[in-house]
Amino acid sequence: MIFVLKPGVPQEKIEQFQQKIESNGFKSFLSTGAGHTVVCLIGNTAAIDLDAVVQNNDIVGYGKRVTEPYKAVNRNVHPEDTMVNVSTVTIGEGMFQVIAGPCSVESEEQIIEIAGSVKASGATMLRGGAFKPRTSPYAFMGLHENGLRFLLKAKKETGLPVVTEIMNQTQLPLFEEIDVIQVGARNMQNFDLLKEVGRFNKPVLLKRGLANTLEELLMSAEYILSEGNSQVILCERGIRTFETATRNTLDLSAIPLLKKKCHLPVIVDPSHAAGLRALVPPLARAAIAAGADGLMIETHNNPARALCDGAQSLDLAQFSDLMADLKRRIAFEGKQAIVV
Amino acid sequence: MIFVLKPGVPQEKIEQFQQKIESNGFKSFLSTGAGHTVVCLIGNTAAIDLDAVVQNNDIVGYGKRVTEPYKAVNRNVHPEDTMVNVSTVTIGEGMFQVIAGPCSVESEEQIIEIAGSVKASGATMLRGGAFKPRTSPYAFMGLHENGLRFLLKAKKETGLPVVTEIMNQTQLPLFEEIDVIQVGARNMQNFDLLKEVGRFNKPVLLKRGLANTLEELLMSAEYILSEGNSQVILCERGIRTFETATRNTLDLSAIPLLKKKCHLPVIVDPSHAAGLRALVPPLARAAIAAGADGLMIETHNNPARALCDGAQSLDLAQFSDLMADLKRRIAFEGKQAIVV
Amino acid sequence: MIFVLKPGVPQEKIEQFQQKIESNGFKSFLSTGAGHTVVCLIGNTAAIDLDAVVQNNDIVGYGKRVTEPYKAVNRNVHPEDTMVNVSTVTIGEGMFQVIAGPCSVESEEQIIEIAGSVKASGATMLRGGAFKPRTSPYAFMGLHENGLRFLLKAKKETGLPVVTEIMNQTQLPLFEEIDVIQVGARNMQNFDLLKEVGRFNKPVLLKRGLANTLEELLMSAEYILSEGNSQVILCERGIRTFETATRNTLDLSAIPLLKKKCHLPVIVDPSHAAGLRALVPPLARAAIAAGADGLMIETHNNPARALCDGAQSLDLAQFSDLMADLKRRIAFEGKQAIVV
Amino acid sequence: MIFVLKPGVPQEKIEQFQQKIESNGFKSFLSTGAGHTVVCLIGNTAAIDLDAVVQNNDIVGYGKRVTEPYKAVNRNVHPEDTMVNVSTVTIGEGMFQVIAGPCSVESEEQIIEIAGSVKASGATMLRGGAFKPRTSPYAFMGLHENGLRFLLKAKKETGLPVVTEIMNQTQLPLFEEIDVIQVGARNMQNFDLLKEVGRFNKPVLLKRGLANTLEELLMSAEYILSEGNSQVILCERGIRTFETATRNTLDLSAIPLLKKKCHLPVIVDPSHAAGLRALVPPLARAAIAAGADGLMIETHNNPARALCDGAQSLDLAQFSDLMADLKRRIAFEGKQAIVV
Repeated sequence: MIFVLKPGVPQEKIEQFQQKIESNGFKSFLSTGAGHTVVCLIGNTAAIDLDAVVQNNDIVGYGKRVTEPYKAVNRNVHPEDTMVNVSTVTIGEGMFQVIAGPCSVESEEQIIEIAGSVKASGATMLRGGAFKPRTSPYAFMGLHENGLRFLLKAKKETGLPVVTEIMNQTQLPLFEEIDVIQVGARNMQNFDLLKEVGRFNKPVLLKRGLANTLEELLMSAEYILSEGNSQVILCERGIRTFETATRNTLDLSAIPLLKKKCHLPVIVDPSHAAGLRALVPPLARAAIAAGADGLMIETHNNPARALCDGAQSLDLAQFSDLMADLKRRIAFEGKQAIVV
Repeated sequence: MIFVLKPGVPQEKIEQFQQKIESNGFKSFLSTGAGHTVVCLIGNTAAIDLDAVVQNNDIVGYGKRVTEPYKAVNRNVHPEDTMVNVSTVTIGEGMFQVIAGPCSVESEEQIIEIAGSVKASGATMLRGGAFKPRTSPYAFMGLHENGLRFLLKAKKETGLPVVTEIMNQTQLPLFEEIDVIQVGARNMQNFDLLKEVGRFNKPVLLKRGLANTLEELLMSAEYILSEGNSQVILCERGIRTFETATRNTLDLSAIPLLKKKCHLPVIVDPSHAAGLRALVPPLARAAIAAGADGLMIETHNNPARALCDGAQSLDLAQFSDLMADLKRRIAFEGKQAIVV
Repeated sequence: MIFVLKPGVPQEKIEQFQQKIESNGFKSFLSTGAGHTVVCLIGNTAAIDLDAVVQNNDIVGYGKRVTEPYKAVNRNVHPEDTMVNVSTVTIGEGMFQVIAGPCSVESEEQIIEIAGSVKASGATMLRGGAFKPRTSPYAFMGLHENGLRFLLKAKKETGLPVVTEIMNQTQLPLFEEIDVIQVGARNMQNFDLLKEVGRFNKPVLLKRGLANTLEELLMSAEYILSEGNSQVILCERGIRTFETATRNTLDLSAIPLLKKKCHLPVIVDPSHAAGLRALVPPLARAAIAAGADGLMIETHNNPARALCDGAQSLDLAQFSDLMADLKRRIAFEGKQAIVV
Repeated sequence: MIFVLKPGVPQEKIEQFQQKIESNGFKSFLSTGAGHTVVCLIGNTAAIDLDAVVQNNDIVGYGKRVTEPYKAVNRNVHPEDTMVNVSTVTIGEGMFQVIAGPCSVESEEQIIEIAGSVKASGATMLRGGAFKPRTSPYAFMGLHENGLRFLLKAKKETGLPVVTEIMNQTQLPLFEEIDVIQVGARNMQNFDLLKEVGRFNKPVLLKRGLANTLEELLMSAEYILSEGNSQVILCERGIRTFETATRNTLDLSAIPLLKKKCHLPVIVDPSHAAGLRALVPPLARAAIAAGADGLMIETHNNPARALCDGAQSLDLAQFSDLMADLKRRIAFEGKQAIVV
């Protein structure tokens, strides 16, 4: 961390500033030149509030963090790609997994029908919500424990590992048999939940928040890793912008940037990004080409009757058609893992 | 809720669409004219996913909700202003309350010193975080139970009612003696938490999320009211935009808009909005002029040593000076409640 | 255009509203049902300010445009894809063109060297700025007339058609020999310029503004087409969001959406979107997969010495490597037009 | 400007980097410490593309501008407040001016009626558009030369100085008798226009662009001042965000920030910011309290018939009522200049 001092600061004030830094347990060193004095801090500066130092010390012009505030997720610290193993499936560089299924589990029959169909089409994991965050308190919020139960039945029938969303940490005991715990966009900065899933021995699918930067996403992943769980999959799902033609704006730059800065797998959810069924195929194709390690696609046996998010769900035939195309593309990229 | 059909839809398809609607328990009526056919739904449409209906029915051009999706917070339903009573203090139209205190409670001495000083300056409530949401897992996260304990000591010493943030529902039992439970910006759509505070018999201070619309804020308040707790105070604290000169962009339009659409009190937090101490006074003055019912201002006995958010905290003398100015302004607006 | 009236409006007020509409030259028809009255306007409503009607008529609850406000660019009106012919090159559905070259023309030697190299790598058009919009008045602003002259020399040497940006309408006479006139992002709503290029008989490359919606982009294209020039190429180049890791956020949803709503070709500029050289290849690949009709890629013979935008320019070898990859992808998509 | 080098860079590469800098005409000095090497550039760095240096030099970790890129508008360079004189009216610190009038001049009678009324209510300047930028090519675009003529008649009748928008530099000769030339939000980065109004001897009202940062606004003002015209008034008019309840989000932090960084007057346009008539009074009050030097308020003799922007216009009685309130507030702030 460095601080550039304002021009013309008296020597005495500079020394006071250095003493203050050192009394907080950091080493500092000074470099002075024509018109510029720069104070460099040495030590673990992750806990320092940079803005506060600038605001609280009149002599400081501005400050800048030289090293990233994240350690455990940092590719500089851990250069090899993390591969997340979910029963028979591996998520990470060189592989490609497609997670498919409905927004919410609506009945045992529904989820089993969808699971069988998406597996036949080539999906390697099954998604389905049992606890649904909804903007309105009057909307359908999922089947809760029953939803989890039906999902596990679908797993048993098809062998597909299952992904489902947790809404708060008190639900964790219910997730013992779930393969991947999803932390949704609205919970990306629910730090207590992040800590708890960090202590739970299960892969976590962490979705980027609607208005969160990539650095914040990495810091949230850092919460999970810093508690001992390194099985984290990041998911880009669109950010909130001024554009209203789509529900969110899918930020595909996130894929190469995240893969450069950290060692975790990165997948894309084109369904929630766009909010429009017709955009799912082109965005899925673009995500593969941009280097994603997988996709999460909403698929429903009867979107017209879906109890939530039907507008963006593909039906089973549309998903099958899309997968036929995606398989060619995954092969083109030299990636493996779609079971044919 | 109305749906405008695409031009040239055959009569038979229109009838199928109406039957589908009615099989879901709604009444519909049709109006036809030169080139336009409009289907109106009658009934409680709050649970309908409008976008899904449009996407899933080829004959529908677009749909529009005619009534707001919120009921309990709606001023049309409940025209009188809600006044929230917090021990000796009342928050609502015609009154003006200033909540002051540090970002986080750091020690018993600190919070008691600050409490005494801000009370002397005219603050009528005390804030102070015991559980702090922090972007980094390595940052200071508050004193937890001890923080609550010190806060209650400061309350006992000064008589100021206290406001503090809850981070997850398992903490609720610790909040029995707290006067107002704050739900922070990052938790505005933590729906399970909203439901729990809705069942807890305490006033709630609900902050707008960084990237949430006013309608979403109202829907989150609706969660609390729909569980039986109508003692909710809304708080505008800045939204995330492209501008980087301030931490967030304070949206003062929120005050007149929220007060028009709902009956709840609306306060403003200029400290978190700006992230810069020097902007707190002008934004506080603007908030009063725009019709706010109160302010929440970060104040610290030693901002240069603050363990979090020091960059935006006023020191005790700055707060005192600001309050001298604000009192004149509150009087100018014809509002009461600052204890002099 | 339809207006839904508020509940309980007296018949007399409804009639006054209809008379007002009809006195403005529109026909209206009324549909009434349980609780809803809808007034539909018939006629060319493109010039009506919808918000004003709602605000200015107390009885109106809300209004909605039923038809798009654009005509000439509308795919419903003109279903066939527009193919833009630029000397030997065709831009449009089924084809794929790569426009390459430096941010600005810096010398005759520079642009000729770059032109020869990018042609050899497979680019089919040459870009290079002669008039450069720069945030700072102290930055390099291009070689102006000399820049155009050097660009035309490079065209003569290589046969590549040339694209260059116009900054204001007084420059039009200088653009007689230029193949494609670029209207930059900052000028997307410079309506007088749009009208002038609409009267000039040259293809126009219209870039999306940093904070403009897709509908606004289409309306700006409509300005050009409504003056008689239908040779317009749209270009997505990133929008401004809260994310600071990239210069802008590339919105690839724009490709399928624009191609659905209008009949014009759509290309993508990954260089300005990302602002980072390392992101250009993955975003270029993603754009092809999402259905773009071409790419515009900044390429420089010596990016380290580039007088502007060097941070995002590929050098000639990097461009050559990228093109080798892109050609495989263009072939994979079944598109033609890269000259090998 | 400083550059912090990556850790472990060999001495030889550092020297090459310094030679490169110095061959570009800058002096540099080096400071080295435990783990950090910082290179500081000395000289006028305004023309350097910081990002390009970072991207183009592998050894550089990041760079930072130490001084602001603007000079002429910089308050550090020019500490006294600029007062802009417009015939009998002065705009700047300590004064307060209200500019009122319609979105567009629609007829001689209209503008004269409005001018007389707003003057009687206390406005000190008259606005009215003759050239109107409109999103749609089919919308009303103003009366052009006739509009200017009618505006000057209204000036003659009432003595109010007039403000009106220019759309391109070819119109400048028509603006000889206009008192203040407005450069609209969409033209804030029309750099050729900025240069031309910088050479024209008239006060300029420069509106912030919809998606422009405050630093960009200052750089655009710098264009005008660097051509010799220092009579510039800045205008905050709302920025584009994800919130759709208002047309734009008014950013009142802009007032104290701009007044701190530069010496120019800052006014606020609450009408275009909100897009809703009912929000104009509270936002106008807030702007005064936040320290604005003036307001620009859309006012129409018959908003229900206004040819553009009627949704946000006050009628003459509403404006009169608002002014009665604003006068009390301007007096409260200790500012002068409303003629009563």
